[in-house]
Amino acid sequence: MEEQKTIDLVNGIEIDTLQNTVKAIQEEPELAKCRFHVTNKWLGANHNCTTVSSFYGARQEIEHKQPFELHADEPPILAGQDQAANPVEHLLHALASCVTTSLVAHAAVRGIHLEEVESEIEGDIDIQGYLGLSKDVPKSYKDIRIKFKVKTDEQNTERLKRLAEFSPVYNTLINGTNVDIEIESK
Amino acid sequence: MEEQKTIDLVNGIEIDTLQNTVKAIQEEPELAKCRFHVTNKWLGANHNCTTVSSFYGARQEIEHKQPFELHADEPPILAGQDQAANPVEHLLHALASCVTTSLVAHAAVRGIHLEEVESEIEGDIDIQGYLGLSKDVPKSYKDIRIKFKVKTDEQNTERLKRLAEFSPVYNTLINGTNVDIEIESK
Repeated sequence: MEEQKTIDLVNGIEIDTLQNTVKAIQEEPELAKCRFHVTNKWLGANHNCTTVSSFYGARQEIEHKQPFELHADEPPILAGQDQAANPVEHLLHALASCVTTSLVAHAAVRGIHLEEVESEIEGDIDIQGYLGLSKDVPKSYKDIRIKFKVKTDEQNTERLKRLAEFSPVYNTLINGTNVDIEIESK
Repeated sequence: MEEQKTIDLVNGIEIDTLQNTVKAIQEEPELAKCRFHVTNKWLGANHNCTTVSSFYGARQEIEHKQPFELHADEPPILAGQDQAANPVEHLLHALASCVTTSLVAHAAVRGIHLEEVESEIEGDIDIQGYLGLSKDVPKSYKDIRIKFKVKTDEQNTERLKRLAEFSPVYNTLINGTNVDIEIESK
């Protein structure tokens, strides 16, 4: 006798899985406390590599299916070998991927079906700040813009903007956060 | 007759290349204006991919040696397939790589030699905010901590902390930045 299981998928996301996570957290808010952590190793010049292996959530350390290695380098104009995207480009990736995931997942639980989601993300930096050439020029991104093109019923687009704004990376960037740097000799 | 070229390398970085960039910008500050940009495409469920091909700087569009594809996914507990690091982990990578590069490059131009640089980066998020379960819980990272271990003369460590703080991603995170999201139907 065959056993059948019906999985409710919206935008490819298993709604039951998400709703079970939500339900568990509503009963026990402590489960929502996550700590994400990575390690980074300098490989010479402007090249370095981050390893992502596990994270803490639901009151336990959870291993990824496999560790992920993420490289960063700089282009030749900044004395790099251009072996990987540079750190400020990785920041745009973090933002783009987070806003996309937030939009898609929050749409899914509300029954909003999406067919395609694409975006262009750009940001401006005057590197006089980074290079220490001017104290009046910020070292940071000045403005970042994301333009989405979404294939869905046109009536959904204004609502999707509010769902995109659930993104943790978006909120970290618009509000700022504490970053503590400690350096000890090895 | 053989031609010889002596390249001044500190921490593996060609100091002449960096100094030429700095000199050109001092003469013409407009060259320092950079615009970084990427595109992102949703691949279904929580999986999406960013492509990094070129950036604008030194008054021209500069192609990377090759386009870079950066994936993001979520772990099973967040209804993903765990095919890549998730967006908030990518943010830690952007930060770790940027602070490392800033520290190494600024040390190089000051003649501070480094042998090894490693770091651990962690940050806390209570995902009740992201899930929309509590308006009192921020959707963003609450605190991020970076611990570096650097193999160098011990007297350098305090100075290295100040050099690390030139990082554009670090400054973007501690100060916050404008992020504009536009959504149009396709």
